[in-house]
Amino acid sequence: MTGTDATSVMTALGERAKAAAAALRMANTKTKDSALRLAASVIRREMTEILSANAMDMKTAEENGIDAALLDRLMLNSDRIDAMAEGLEQVAALPDPIGAVDNLRYRPSGIQVGHMRVPLGVIGMIYESRPNVTADAAALCLKSGNAVILRGGSEAIHSNRAIAACLRRALVDSGLTQDAVQLIDSTDRAMVGALLKSESYVDVIIPRGGRSLIERVAAESRVPVIKHLDGICHVYIDAAADPAMALAIALNAKTHRYGVCNAMETLLIHQQAAAATLTPIVRAMLDKGVEVRGCERTQALCGDLQVGTATDEDWATEYLAPVLSVRIVDDLDAAIAHIEAYASGHTESIVTADYEAGQRFLREVDSASVMWNASTRFADGFEYGLGAEIGISTDRLHVRGPVGLEGLTTQKWIVLGHGEIRS
Amino acid sequence: MTGTDATSVMTALGERAKAAAAALRMANTKTKDSALRLAASVIRREMTEILSANAMDMKTAEENGIDAALLDRLMLNSDRIDAMAEGLEQVAALPDPIGAVDNLRYRPSGIQVGHMRVPLGVIGMIYESRPNVTADAAALCLKSGNAVILRGGSEAIHSNRAIAACLRRALVDSGLTQDAVQLIDSTDRAMVGALLKSESYVDVIIPRGGRSLIERVAAESRVPVIKHLDGICHVYIDAAADPAMALAIALNAKTHRYGVCNAMETLLIHQQAAAATLTPIVRAMLDKGVEVRGCERTQALCGDLQVGTATDEDWATEYLAPVLSVRIVDDLDAAIAHIEAYASGHTESIVTADYEAGQRFLREVDSASVMWNASTRFADGFEYGLGAEIGISTDRLHVRGPVGLEGLTTQKWIVLGHGEIRS
Repeated sequence: MTGTDATSVMTALGERAKAAAAALRMANTKTKDSALRLAASVIRREMTEILSANAMDMKTAEENGIDAALLDRLMLNSDRIDAMAEGLEQVAALPDPIGAVDNLRYRPSGIQVGHMRVPLGVIGMIYESRPNVTADAAALCLKSGNAVILRGGSEAIHSNRAIAACLRRALVDSGLTQDAVQLIDSTDRAMVGALLKSESYVDVIIPRGGRSLIERVAAESRVPVIKHLDGICHVYIDAAADPAMALAIALNAKTHRYGVCNAMETLLIHQQAAAATLTPIVRAMLDKGVEVRGCERTQALCGDLQVGTATDEDWATEYLAPVLSVRIVDDLDAAIAHIEAYASGHTESIVTADYEAGQRFLREVDSASVMWNASTRFADGFEYGLGAEIGISTDRLHVRGPVGLEGLTTQKWIVLGHGEIRS
Repeated sequence: MTGTDATSVMTALGERAKAAAAALRMANTKTKDSALRLAASVIRREMTEILSANAMDMKTAEENGIDAALLDRLMLNSDRIDAMAEGLEQVAALPDPIGAVDNLRYRPSGIQVGHMRVPLGVIGMIYESRPNVTADAAALCLKSGNAVILRGGSEAIHSNRAIAACLRRALVDSGLTQDAVQLIDSTDRAMVGALLKSESYVDVIIPRGGRSLIERVAAESRVPVIKHLDGICHVYIDAAADPAMALAIALNAKTHRYGVCNAMETLLIHQQAAAATLTPIVRAMLDKGVEVRGCERTQALCGDLQVGTATDEDWATEYLAPVLSVRIVDDLDAAIAHIEAYASGHTESIVTADYEAGQRFLREVDSASVMWNASTRFADGFEYGLGAEIGISTDRLHVRGPVGLEGLTTQKWIVLGHGEIRS
């Protein structure tokens, strides 16, 4: 497809999405929730069709020699399809954020001023191999009153088509417009470029995927982007940390799951806490099969334990793997300075019983999630009570950290008067 | 200056701003407020110096044949300088948004999750002729814990330099870093380009000025922008409007000030309200010297009154002048459809005593401010209780409508635990 062709396809998609967004903005909660529940039942009913579409994607992927991890992400089975349908029902059960009025108060002029929560408009969602994102993202966009244009991975095109068809059928049968959910029905990369330049139609782009996708989107997009870059997360064990709590949190943060963005990548230990915590933690990590790379002091204190050498590059790396870098620091200031220099702004946690140290850490560390005596693994939309999550933002504007329904909305000012004029 | 030179100047400014932002993030309320009050007194003390710098700008502007309106915006006198100092004191008196914790609540896992309000980081402010923006913008950025890089109009460079010098002196004397406020000390346009590409240092750009400035910024910027485009504001007089209230609001919205973004540009009247409201309003507008351009029905109903012909172009024009377009519409749906087609998303108001019509208008009109029985002129940071205003956003993300201190902040998640780990 040429760039011009892609632009004209995108314009048609964009115009339909804009019209759908205007209609969806006014849809009431009951209609949106019925559509979501109906979509769940259509997906369950069409399971065979979705599975056979997925089989085509799996066959092509295998023929192309795609690796096992990606194949697993691409693969659907009846359990996964059922989980997808359940996800739609869970979103239907969440409170509707739209129309909520906050903070309405009288002003000296006599007018009442407040905020009303409203949809963002049209959301462009760019994602990679997991076909369930098609249903998950569409559900969150629909519930929050937004139209969505979906662009999934080309390896999942048949699966995504089958899932999107179920969603669109449910929309129509619920009296909503099917254009509230549109899938870019082409694997041509030019379509991504066209989507990123459609600032007249699309209000925000949310990319979900690997670093190269996110960086391409951030570099090319004329539409505002809510992006999720690396999670180089830290746990800092303060002088006043309880050693048992420090061990439990460090282990959980590193070994609960390795390939996730909220896993710990670097452990910082106050020099006064090292005697009581360093070797038990390193031993436990090694027992779990985690490779440990330490600073000089770490290596010296670990004696015979197998600890490699951490370099500057280690401090700046998101391993997403059973590898941990460990650094002994002089004090809280040094820990915060290390975090300032190397963290990606995702999630950091302090373990301490010291009120002053905890308060300072909470206030001074500039990350999307800052924790005190808890595992970094809690940085998650479900754990935070958002009910669902469309992504995790490492940006600073609009929304930071886990993004749920509210992150897909904005607020307008409302003014209630009685004939007031300005003097 | 070449682009490369501009980039290296900008890099130096950006690095200093980033360091200043990290320090300012931790500054307490008392220190920030003292710095603001001290800045006010330095500005009053240095009045003679500021006036003579401004005289240089005025002389150059007059020699360049700059028009009277721009000369008036550029001109400082003792009253205006005093108002600038008072503005700094007013910002000092506002509550500090930074560090406020919202909505901290327990989750089933045992952790407490909430939001803490924090600064955005580094703000790039691009503005035109009014030198008081130098002080106003710096004050709001400082109070909200942000470092700012200011780029004023080249015609005001001497005035801006003198004002920025006062602010920086006050910062140092209050124990803060002077780099919290930096002025781009060059009138070279290449510096604007460099600022717009400094996404590694600057978190958001706020342009304030005419349409061509805003459009250039929006098109070129790699940094997120909070922008303020046109204010094509509407008043809609519903069938159930009180005629006296309709007249008062329409007159105020149009004639209170002409050159402001929250002035009404188009008046929509329900056909059933036209008999009681149209000619009194048109007569009052003409008496005030406002040119009226109407649709066919308006012209027919206005008889001998001097009403020109409104074209499609009129509906899409922000006059910023004593010109008003008037359209008779069939009903509320037609009014909302007209607004959907032509409004710029700034401010619209309905005049009605009908509960259902008012509720629908509030819910369905998609503008930054939506009003019921009040003049559009109230769309303003002071009138809304923000205490001050750095601009008015017609964007949808992050902040919409008048932008005060809170618009210059973001939130991070905080998690308070007791050793919780994820299972």
